[in-house]
Amino acid sequence: MQYTKPLARLIEEFQKLPGIGPKSAQRMAFHILKMPSAEVQKFCDAIIYAKEKIKYCRTCFNMSSEDPCEICSDERRDKHTICVVSETRDLIALERTREYKGLYHVLQGVISPLDGISPDDLRVKELLNRLGSDIEEIILALNPSVEGEATSLYLSRLIKPLGIKVTRIAFGLPVGADLEYADEVTLAKALEGRREIL
Amino acid sequence: MQYTKPLARLIEEFQKLPGIGPKSAQRMAFHILKMPSAEVQKFCDAIIYAKEKIKYCRTCFNMSSEDPCEICSDERRDKHTICVVSETRDLIALERTREYKGLYHVLQGVISPLDGISPDDLRVKELLNRLGSDIEEIILALNPSVEGEATSLYLSRLIKPLGIKVTRIAFGLPVGADLEYADEVTLAKALEGRREIL
Repeated sequence: MQYTKPLARLIEEFQKLPGIGPKSAQRMAFHILKMPSAEVQKFCDAIIYAKEKIKYCRTCFNMSSEDPCEICSDERRDKHTICVVSETRDLIALERTREYKGLYHVLQGVISPLDGISPDDLRVKELLNRLGSDIEEIILALNPSVEGEATSLYLSRLIKPLGIKVTRIAFGLPVGADLEYADEVTLAKALEGRREIL
Repeated sequence: MQYTKPLARLIEEFQKLPGIGPKSAQRMAFHILKMPSAEVQKFCDAIIYAKEKIKYCRTCFNMSSEDPCEICSDERRDKHTICVVSETRDLIALERTREYKGLYHVLQGVISPLDGISPDDLRVKELLNRLGSDIEEIILALNPSVEGEATSLYLSRLIKPLGIKVTRIAFGLPVGADLEYADEVTLAKALEGRREIL
């Protein structure tokens, strides 16, 4: 005997979650079994509710329960700037800074030939369709990885000829980091992106 | 704007799981939203099913979908030995060794005055009720913590006078460990528990 069947099934399901191995899955399963039934029902309701409610915004492809999403329909946002991100979680990270007031476009991935992801698999066409005369700047906020760089380059080559300013977020030393321990690529980016002190 | 409401609720629910902080919860929530609906339904079904089905065995207080549990009702098990553990997960760890063929008793905790857990909160009375003339040995397999030690001592003082042999699992160096890096308490236990080489 190992686990009783319903428990084995529960542990197996938990193991499908990202970053969850057999030990964590077991711990979660036992936690669920010790939770009051009402709490467990609430947990499942939240999952089903989120799954049902959350769709992609048809304008920017942000995950949202509304379409257009809260950002696209917010009148106070600057409609002249679009920040291009790979995933909704990147959008959320940027929103947390409270610094950016423009719109977004979620590509839903980056170009990655190794994984078989080409521009056609991303929301590139939809981005180009948004680029009317009212758009003044496209900010590329993709990860500083090989794929992110390639995607940034690809997009800038498509968008620049339209006469729209294309910028990208700065890469360099993170705040609080120690120059001594920074890796060479980050340092090289920091040097390359240096700005004059005014 | 931060998270859209159903997403915020989902992340909050995931954060209630043990060992899950805001970042992991967000990662799981996004994973759920990217999973096919049928898979999500399966996930929730497994939770609800386990929660409904799994009860405690009224004999040994093991978690099980049967009562008596698979172990108590297994005719091939040695009915003369009871191994006392704190939680069902400890029972499962012991079962994995495939070395033990007797019965179990799950205390559902250990004595811990600091947390307000007294012997009355545990399944001690139920253990004593099982100690008929057919029981020959009680193996105490509680964690080598202060609370585990105290509970072991408490139980042995109750059970020994009944003329039943009380033993406890060995504490010492784990297999594969390095003597040089073992802590003093473990080493002391290993010395204390030394056995003659025959």
